[in-house]
This record gives sequence, C-alpha cells and structure tokens, in this order.
Amino acid sequence: MSARVEPDNAAQSPVHPVETNPEAVDALVGAATTAAKWMKDRTPAERGKLLQAVASALDVRGEAFVDVAERESHLGRDRLRGELARTTFQLRFFADVLAAGWVTPAIVDRADPNWPVGPRPDLRRALFPIGPVVVFAAGNFPFAFSVAGGDTASALAAGCPVLLKAHPGHLELSAMVARTVMEALNLCGAPSGAFTLVVGDEAGRAVLGHPGVRAAAFTGSMHVGRVLFDLANRRPIPIPFYGELGSVNPVFVTERAAAARLDSILNGFLQSFGLGSGQFCTKPGILVVPAKSSAADELGKRMSERRPSLLLSESITAAYRARVAELTSSLAARIVHAGEVTDAGVTPTLIEAPMEAARSDLENLATECFGPAAVVVTCTSHDEMIELATSLEGQLTGTVFGDEDDPVAAALVEVLAERVGRVVWNDWPTGVSVTWAMHHGGPYPATTAPLSTSVGATAILRFLRPVVFQQVPNAVLPPALRDNQLSEALHASDGRWQAAR
Amino acid sequence: MSARVEPDNAAQSPVHPVETNPEAVDALVGAATTAAKWMKDRTPAERGKLLQAVASALDVRGEAFVDVAERESHLGRDRLRGELARTTFQLRFFADVLAAGWVTPAIVDRADPNWPVGPRPDLRRALFPIGPVVVFAAGNFPFAFSVAGGDTASALAAGCPVLLKAHPGHLELSAMVARTVMEALNLCGAPSGAFTLVVGDEAGRAVLGHPGVRAAAFTGSMHVGRVLFDLANRRPIPIPFYGELGSVNPVFVTERAAAARLDSILNGFLQSFGLGSGQFCTKPGILVVPAKSSAADELGKRMSERRPSLLLSESITAAYRARVAELTSSLAARIVHAGEVTDAGVTPTLIEAPMEAARSDLENLATECFGPAAVVVTCTSHDEMIELATSLEGQLTGTVFGDEDDPVAAALVEVLAERVGRVVWNDWPTGVSVTWAMHHGGPYPATTAPLSTSVGATAILRFLRPVVFQQVPNAVLPPALRDNQLSEALHASDGRWQAAR
Repeated sequence: MSARVEPDNAAQSPVHPVETNPEAVDALVGAATTAAKWMKDRTPAERGKLLQAVASALDVRGEAFVDVAERESHLGRDRLRGELARTTFQLRFFADVLAAGWVTPAIVDRADPNWPVGPRPDLRRALFPIGPVVVFAAGNFPFAFSVAGGDTASALAAGCPVLLKAHPGHLELSAMVARTVMEALNLCGAPSGAFTLVVGDEAGRAVLGHPGVRAAAFTGSMHVGRVLFDLANRRPIPIPFYGELGSVNPVFVTERAAAARLDSILNGFLQSFGLGSGQFCTKPGILVVPAKSSAADELGKRMSERRPSLLLSESITAAYRARVAELTSSLAARIVHAGEVTDAGVTPTLIEAPMEAARSDLENLATECFGPAAVVVTCTSHDEMIELATSLEGQLTGTVFGDEDDPVAAALVEVLAERVGRVVWNDWPTGVSVTWAMHHGGPYPATTAPLSTSVGATAILRFLRPVVFQQVPNAVLPPALRDNQLSEALHASDGRWQAAR
Repeated sequence: MSARVEPDNAAQSPVHPVETNPEAVDALVGAATTAAKWMKDRTPAERGKLLQAVASALDVRGEAFVDVAERESHLGRDRLRGELARTTFQLRFFADVLAAGWVTPAIVDRADPNWPVGPRPDLRRALFPIGPVVVFAAGNFPFAFSVAGGDTASALAAGCPVLLKAHPGHLELSAMVARTVMEALNLCGAPSGAFTLVVGDEAGRAVLGHPGVRAAAFTGSMHVGRVLFDLANRRPIPIPFYGELGSVNPVFVTERAAAARLDSILNGFLQSFGLGSGQFCTKPGILVVPAKSSAADELGKRMSERRPSLLLSESITAAYRARVAELTSSLAARIVHAGEVTDAGVTPTLIEAPMEAARSDLENLATECFGPAAVVVTCTSHDEMIELATSLEGQLTGTVFGDEDDPVAAALVEVLAERVGRVVWNDWPTGVSVTWAMHHGGPYPATTAPLSTSVGATAILRFLRPVVFQQVPNAVLPPALRDNQLSEALHASDGRWQAAR
C-alpha cells in the first residue's frame, strides 16, 4: 500500500457539488458495505498507512483548501491553516494509536479446567469495525470537525467506511477535501465506497435511516442533533448515535482569584470567548464571578472596542440574532453591552445577572448561544457558585479559576466533575488538544452518548464492536487472534498484560 | 469496612413484597443519589470489599434462597445451586477486575510544550460512576441475571447505586436476596440508597423516567426491551439503555462434521437446547444441517422420550404456546415432533424447513421462541448455509460444527463474526463463562447496545463515564489521579503503559 498524491488541477478548480439524489443512497450504502469487507481485513498497520496517506494528500493541497475555506466560512487564514494542521496531525495520531495497540487490545483467556464456575473454554476477544458510519459534518470547523475531521479519522482508523454528510456552509471545500480523501484511499487500494460525500439534508436523513449504516456521528446544534438522535433510535434496527450538541462551558472565578488576578482572567476570557467569533463548542458562555467584582462592566468596556466579524453563514447569523434577543429580554439580566448585527458582521453582546435573579430564568441563561454572546453571573457567596454549578445540565467543559489551597475551588472542581467531560483549572476550555487522554464529551445535552469522546485516542472505540471466539482453532481464527500474531501485540491474557514479543 | 452476616430468621421466613408506590419513586431515587456520592468516593479496593461482602452474605443464606427459588421458578435445585455459585463468583470476580486495574485504567498526558498541535496541557483522564442505575431483572435466571446478578455486580463495581426492578416471576426470592444485599452493603457503611428493590411495572417505568437515574440495564423479551429502550431514549435527557433482548443462536453443521459425528452433535444439541427447559437466551434455536442428514427425525425421536417440564410462569407458558403455534403453522415447515402443553408442563417441539422453503418465512422461523422449541433448517449445499448465516439478524452467539481444514467452516465463522457477539466452535453456546474476555452481547436485536457486554470483565465499562482534568494541581485532583496514587496503579502515560510501582 502506498499513496502518492500530486497537486492537481481538479483540486484547485472550482467544484460545485450537487445534492445527492435520495434514490442514489441505496447504491452508495451498498458500495460502503462492499468497502467494509476490504477495510475489515486490513491490519492496524495498514489502516495507519491509509490515514497517513490521507494526511499527506491534504497537506499537499493545503493552500488551495484554505483559499476556499476562507471564502466560504469567513474565518481567517491563520486560523484555517492551524485547523488544517490539527486535522492532518489527528489522522497521523490515530495511526500512532493503532500502532501502540493498548487502546484496542485483544483480551484472551486460555482454557482452564479449574475455573471456579466450571471449565473455562479458550476465549479470544477482539474489536471489529462496526460497519459503514454516517458522519454529519460541523459548520464551525471546516477542517477539524468536517470532511476529514475527527469523526472521519476515528471511523477510518476503526476500519469503517464513512458516508460524509457535507455541511451546507462549506460545500465547495467539502467536495475538494472529499475528492482528496477518496483519491488517497483509492491509491492505497481501497474500494470506492470507503469514503462517500453526501450532499443535502434529505439524502443525509436517508443515509441515517438506511439499514446498511451501523453508526452515526454528529457535531452541531442541540435541535438538529436531537432530531437525528431520535431518527437513529426509532429505526427498526437502532444504531449508536454519537452527537455533540453544545455546551455553555461555565467558568467560575473564586473570590480569591478575582481579588488577585481579575484583569488577566478577563483578558483570557475575551480571547477564548472570541475565538472563531464565538462559534466554538467550547466557548466559555457563562462567566461566574463574585458580586463585588467589576467584571461585567470591565468586559463590556473591552467588548465595545471589538470590530464586527462575519459569522459562518446567514442562517447562523439569524439564529444568533434570535437567541441574543431571548437573552437580552431576560427579566433576570442587565444588558452590559449590546452588540450589533449589520452587514459588516456582528459585535459581541454581554449581559449580567445576579444569581438571585438568574435562578428564575436559568434555562434561558444557561442555554448555548452560538456566536459572540455571553452571560456574567454574579454571586454574593461561594455557596451561590456551588448552587449554580449544581444546577447546570451536562457540559463539555467546566472551568475553575482558583487557588489549590482554597477549599471553594476544590469543591467547584468536584461538583463540575459530575456534570462535565473536562474540568479545566486556571486555563481556558477552547483549543481541545488531540492527545491520548483527551475527553471531548459530557452528559446530555453536551453529547447524546456520555461515555464516548469525539477527540482523543479513545474516540476510535465508538466504532468498534467486540466479538469473542470460543474454542476456535488457530487456523480458523481471525489472523490477529492467532497465537503467532497475538504474541506480537500487546494484549491481555488471563487477566494480565502481555507485552509484544 | 467489614461485613459479617449470619443466617437469620428474616431471610428464611416468607417475604411478601408489595408493589412500590410510583409516588415513592422520587424519594427512592433521591436516596440513591445521596448514596452515589458515598460510592463515588470509594477506592477500587473498597468497592471490591463491598462486592465480596455481598457474595459472602449470599453464600450464607444459599439454601434458603434455593428453597424459594425452586418453588417460584420450577427450576431444579442443582441448577439453582450452580447458578447461585456463579452469581457469587461473579461478584468476587468484579473485585478482581477492580484490583487488576487494566480494564479501567487512568490515561495521563504530561504537559508537553512541543506537542505538534501546540503546547499540550497536563491531562488526566479517569472513569467515574455514571450515577444511579435501574436494572430490570430477568425471569429465567433468578440469581445470575436477577437481583444480585451481572448487571447489579457490574454497576456496584463501577460505583453506581442500583435500583433493582424485581421480576414478577420470583418476587419472594427477590425480596430475600435484596434484603441480604442491602444488609451486607449497610454493614460496610453504605447509605441505604446504595441498593433499592422496586416492585411493579408502573414503578419500574417511573424509575426509568426519573431524571436522577443515569443508565438502565435490562434482560428480557424483545418486545418489552424495545418499549423500555424507547422510553429511555425519549426522556428529555436520554440515558444509555443496555438491553439484552434475545437471540436464536444458530448452529451450523458442515457436511463433513455431519458425516463424521452427527450422533454426538445431536446429543449435545439436545442437552444444550433443553437447559432450563429451553428458557436460556443462549439456547440453540436453529440447527442448520445438510439436507441428506437424518438430523431432524433423529432429534424428533429423542425428543419424544422427554418428560414434560414446567416453564417459569403461566404467562411465559401462554407466550410459548402462541409462539409455537406461529412456528408450526409456517407453510415452509414440517412438524417433526409436536410437543404438548399440559398442567404437567411442556414437551419440546421441533419443526424442519428446507432452506428453499425457509427463505419465504425466515422472519418467523428465525425469531426467538422462549421455551423448548427449535427449528432444523436443511441445506442442499454449503452456499445455502452461508446464505442463511448472511440473512440472520444480530445474534448473541453463532456456532459452527466443522473441521479446521474445511474452508466452508472458516467461511461460516467469518460470516457469523459479522453478526454475533460470540462465535462458538464445536461447542455449545449455553453456559456463558464469567471471564476476562467474555463478550455476551451482539448487534440488535440481540442487544440494544452492540458495543457492550452484560457478562465478563468489560461489563463494568457500561456504567463508567470518562472525565479528563486539564492542568488541575495534585491537591485538587481526585485522589486516584494524583501523582503518588497514580504511580501505584497500572495506567497509561504519554501513550505507554506504566506498571504499578
């Protein structure tokens, strides 16, 4: 297997994808099902090479992608370049994950006639790709959570063909990246169904409902995510649906932290909050501060200096405008800085609510606003902060600015750990690093699958199904479970780790 | 923590549980929520001691349990004794799983300023109990899949309080076992909400719908399982639902195997098929044999010698009678042996269908019949066997009787591995061993959660939610993630395993 991809005219010329005919979905899923067989039979090392080939192909065409992405998304070139680098790193990282082996180990029990509940047969368990996966791309990360993003990378790493429902916000980029992915996979010998671009909501729903599709991944709004989650669960044969729906990512500043370093915290907040014009799923949307601090007015002042920026699309701008109207009409809140929505873009909006008033309108105040709006909640005591943390629904992240010898900070960490996927300490939730330990998930509505992550090494486990083989002889076992190959990989045997030979 | 439980009068006197008032559910879940906090803070070793204490308490009262179980379930004493031994072993095994650590390891990335996608913060990921779990007990295993069965053991091992919806088929036993579990937990210091018995369907549904309940496990029929699965998914905040719904567990006998050892295979089939009067979820319900074999008539002859046995309950007998009527009225099938349903019990029923005819009625023939009925499908070629294997829905198990140098046998194993959770070779699917590698699951409708298992070491993962801590200092981290404790446990660090110190 090898891949050699040159920059070509096709990738640089405009691509105008057309809507996928829902009647064509059956054939597309059929091709994916055929490809699933080929992909299942690749070794981890071969899967790793597929991922590396895709990454290399994307690198080659990077600047052409950035040109189109900039035009379609209104995001800056530097940000887009960084995001593309993250995307290709992620593909290569999953190759490392496969090579390391410990995230997806075989578990083996040799036959044991003296096992306490009766003779134990030889049992060998391995993880197999679940089958074709539909991935619904996000609009706010045109590379990292889109066509060749984390869901695609982890599904391909697991050995699953991907049917990629393009986000309507960057269709031309989607088509270019998809073509590059397909070419790279094909050069490695993969069947054409290993990766398929699907355009249009109706076709996307048809793919989600197709019996040949075995899992779904989604990054997007709570409303759309719930609709698709319900569709996945109402199928005659339901499938796992990994939806990342949204989060307000609360940030708590203790009294001591506010007294000691409020200015730098507010600067950090503005920087984190403003990334991607407030269109990050990890945007800090609620800042909780002591009532005596001047945080809200200070932030309002600094926000008034912000220049307008365009949101991703007109429909997102419209949804943002409506959501800001809900926030600013809250009887619990004071408008600290009223942003504007003009043809030049949007400027940020900030409201402030004392905890005493916020209680009565928490569902509104603590619902995500996608775009540059935030809520400052002021608390007259640390008990109020704990109460607020306890009242929140599931979140991707929760952050504490505090001191390690301050019991209040420790208490906030403990409460947040019960309702978020990531607890951040004196740092900011944006910028989800791609690493072994990363967990990007959380209880509903942050995600629809609170045990899983869409970023990090363990994201691959979403698309792998265990199968155990009982008394199956070497010659008939899948190759990875045969004695000779097993001994060359880290695995568990009779309850203990066995290093690779 | 220690537990000392003596046989007492209470456990031996009759217990008549009353229906749980649905209005009491709020208080019960409240108590479980309180207990969740205590359980979350136990170390793996402390959780292990809880499980061992429950196992010891059950052992002490074993014969009293068996008396009641025999009367309520119509199952034999030896079988019930064996099942209780399996149940207490399972509790102790999960203590071993917790002690070994590698099933639930921490994953740690130290800060790395040179990480390719930007400076990597210190990230430490651990698994935390998901919170109160509702377990719907099964009727066919009054010990191993009921009050103190696998779902309860794995939830307690994970640190989750259990609300146990009793199966109506053995309420008195359920109350006795539940009291023993509660006493053992309380002697170890656990709050009363750590384990709660819930009686009645209405209360069970109320618990499933309660916002304080965070996951559900179920073993039972496809119909009831789907109803509860739908309820779990339609909640405002959906929760993971681990349902094991049923399976026909097909067994394929190749031409060579039939020619060489049909007689012993048929004996094995009769033995496996007849366990628990055919009321095992792993009962081989379809036997696929070469057309030229006399398997069906031979089995029919031997079945006619079987004495009647009582099924678990009248409602199960009624459902069995109706399902047998569907099978025997299949136009595709010939009735080889027509069993009877009398006051003395049921005798087995066997029908035979040639593959050519079976195609037209496969949905009926390949749907589980809970009780002693089976279908023999005769195939005129191995291609027909492969076709049948390919046509089947998700199964808990699939079995091949064959020879390792016979490509047909290998092909059957490969096809079955794509649609079952366990592939069995020249052995029988009943008797699911409790081990490290065991996987008792499978694609829908075998289960509602195809990535999970209800038996074996990894069953604990169903109730554990990952949380990652970013830049959190030692003093504020959960104890297990602090440097000093981390080094005492097997964990992954920077992508490599680190042994315990």
